[in-house]
Amino acid sequence: MIELSDAKDIILQQVIKKSPEEVSILDSLNHVLAEDIFADRDYPPFNRATMDGFALQSKNYSENRDYKIIDTVFAGDSFDKPLSDSECVKIMTGAAVPDGLDAVIRIEDSQISGSTVRFSVSELKSGKNVAQRGEDCKAGVKLLNKDYLIKSTSISLLATVGCEMLKVYPSPTVSLITTGNEIIPLDQHPGPHQIRNSNSYAIKALLKDIGIKPSYENHVSDNIELLRDSLSRGLHSDILIITGGVSMGDSDHVPGTLSALGVEKLFHKVKIKPGKPIWFGVKEKTAVFALPGNPMSCQICFKVFIEPYIRGLKGIAAHDNPFLPLSQERQNRTGRNDCFPVQIEKANSFMTTLDYNGSGDIKGNLHSDGFAIQPHDLITVSKGELLEYIPWRAYD
Amino acid sequence: MIELSDAKDIILQQVIKKSPEEVSILDSLNHVLAEDIFADRDYPPFNRATMDGFALQSKNYSENRDYKIIDTVFAGDSFDKPLSDSECVKIMTGAAVPDGLDAVIRIEDSQISGSTVRFSVSELKSGKNVAQRGEDCKAGVKLLNKDYLIKSTSISLLATVGCEMLKVYPSPTVSLITTGNEIIPLDQHPGPHQIRNSNSYAIKALLKDIGIKPSYENHVSDNIELLRDSLSRGLHSDILIITGGVSMGDSDHVPGTLSALGVEKLFHKVKIKPGKPIWFGVKEKTAVFALPGNPMSCQICFKVFIEPYIRGLKGIAAHDNPFLPLSQERQNRTGRNDCFPVQIEKANSFMTTLDYNGSGDIKGNLHSDGFAIQPHDLITVSKGELLEYIPWRAYD
Repeated sequence: MIELSDAKDIILQQVIKKSPEEVSILDSLNHVLAEDIFADRDYPPFNRATMDGFALQSKNYSENRDYKIIDTVFAGDSFDKPLSDSECVKIMTGAAVPDGLDAVIRIEDSQISGSTVRFSVSELKSGKNVAQRGEDCKAGVKLLNKDYLIKSTSISLLATVGCEMLKVYPSPTVSLITTGNEIIPLDQHPGPHQIRNSNSYAIKALLKDIGIKPSYENHVSDNIELLRDSLSRGLHSDILIITGGVSMGDSDHVPGTLSALGVEKLFHKVKIKPGKPIWFGVKEKTAVFALPGNPMSCQICFKVFIEPYIRGLKGIAAHDNPFLPLSQERQNRTGRNDCFPVQIEKANSFMTTLDYNGSGDIKGNLHSDGFAIQPHDLITVSKGELLEYIPWRAYD
Repeated sequence: MIELSDAKDIILQQVIKKSPEEVSILDSLNHVLAEDIFADRDYPPFNRATMDGFALQSKNYSENRDYKIIDTVFAGDSFDKPLSDSECVKIMTGAAVPDGLDAVIRIEDSQISGSTVRFSVSELKSGKNVAQRGEDCKAGVKLLNKDYLIKSTSISLLATVGCEMLKVYPSPTVSLITTGNEIIPLDQHPGPHQIRNSNSYAIKALLKDIGIKPSYENHVSDNIELLRDSLSRGLHSDILIITGGVSMGDSDHVPGTLSALGVEKLFHKVKIKPGKPIWFGVKEKTAVFALPGNPMSCQICFKVFIEPYIRGLKGIAAHDNPFLPLSQERQNRTGRNDCFPVQIEKANSFMTTLDYNGSGDIKGNLHSDGFAIQPHDLITVSKGELLEYIPWRAYD
């Protein structure tokens, strides 16, 4: 049985970023850029009217002057006729202010009379209601660095500079194999000693939260031949997740079968509760996580061990989990790092412990926002003391 | 121009929850239950061994006794032979403890000798290492209430009780129409007075964050005929989002065309910056949000006005946004509720203002975690004072 911190280190040492792939702009959401992004031209690309109104020269402007309306310039229009300082054009928000003109007076401040207009503003500064070409950024400026994590707020910019396709680090491929003679599919009626395959859905839900659908999934009974065939197939993915069959029982064939298939064991059993029997190994580019079959163990192991590995393959920088205060004293006499479900109080971010009935409790994690980890060597944690917190919700 | 709070009220008054639909378990993620969920049987459904070891009677147990091993019981096995108090069965984690037996001793505490076994535990309590049938919950107990928001932690339980399909409030259908003569698709090279269609992607990214893909999308130039045809089609959705064409310009045909199509205007212009020209109306079951075309206006209006409406249609309870402290003094002399991009400091949740160059700034929202709202009547906010905060990231 190894330390939790050692287990996490061993896993992260195996991380090799996926090779970049070109994806379409919306598929790049929640992926890390594998290229720098530059401004393809000045932004704004032209002197842009920021109001509906009239464009004119600010030089020689006077409130007491009639201006001749020469034309109307809409967004997208090109207008290149030179104007005198007593002429103007009607102009729409977003349109290019014609060369030679340098200010826009709002329609609300204008009195039109036939083909002329007067304005009710006493003075007019050059640049009024005009966004100057290049004032947001100049052509060639680096806008986003390689290794930037793309979020919904990045997409507008990427579209603006024409990134219909862009290079990102893709998600890993994942295989999911559940095991156990007692497990039946959801569409069958369980016999007295059978239970339904909840782990398959629990893991798929956690994967779906981070945008991944298993490329291969299977359930196998505790039969070495069937297990070997399925594991072989699962080893074609970047990540192979197995649930059940990793403990000390006579039908716990997973570790032995993985070894027989040439998967190198890097650890088996970690000082964590629940989840102690977790097995981790590698074969070539495939990382194999074999999780214990109890529902809470399975979900907690996914968050503690698998999600950080997936983030690493996607090129997302490792982050430290937050430490939050616990709302009451708590004991940990398990000798292991004790993970327990908590709710976060909105007002003050205190973590409130939720009761649960052991790692097999089918509703143990249900109303929790996440779980806290009480270290194995911290037997008593006082009210208000900080513990590491892992939210169920996937991180940015 | 109406108050922001009034605009939000008007929008929420239009909310009518969607009719429930039956979806598969994984598709129910992030949806609200439209039915109560009950335990279909006791959980655990049988007395379950929680360790690999030997099951026996705790009555007359003694450390100095040899126990005869009668058989091995695997998970999923049914074993119904009666045993005496000097007999035991080897048993695996997850297996049903045979009737008449009431305790399990761990394999680690057992010394096997041929067909008998002795145990190195001095006393044995009834129920040791056995999860009792029904101790998590009894058959018929309500596990989840109608109106519960399903998250990844709910999926394990739903699978356990056999909910392969379940009734939830579905997402609304959304149409997205961008407008403007100056706007070109991403795969075309922009002329000097043209810009690329960033709003379409910005809105689709924000929708994707909440699991929605527009059922109809289109870009139309500022042509009333084309606009009318496209809007008509968009009115078949639950929500029609339009960008651009809502201000005071001569090519701002959206409000007039919507009225001509029988859409009832509920407001036009709100005391908000950016986003003032927003137009909102309804026609039968369709809500129409016409947003101003500047990129920051568009994204901020989506979060302030559209996302809460979508949540309502999905049956998600309205929530109050958090109020967080601002890291420096700030003025608001705009006379409007001033929305500005902020980053959240991890250590203390203070909001740090990010500079931006007006609502047309193509990178204005880029590095922000969300935006704060400084009310129109709060001209000076002091360092540490609380302001409403809206994260870009979709809420739970």
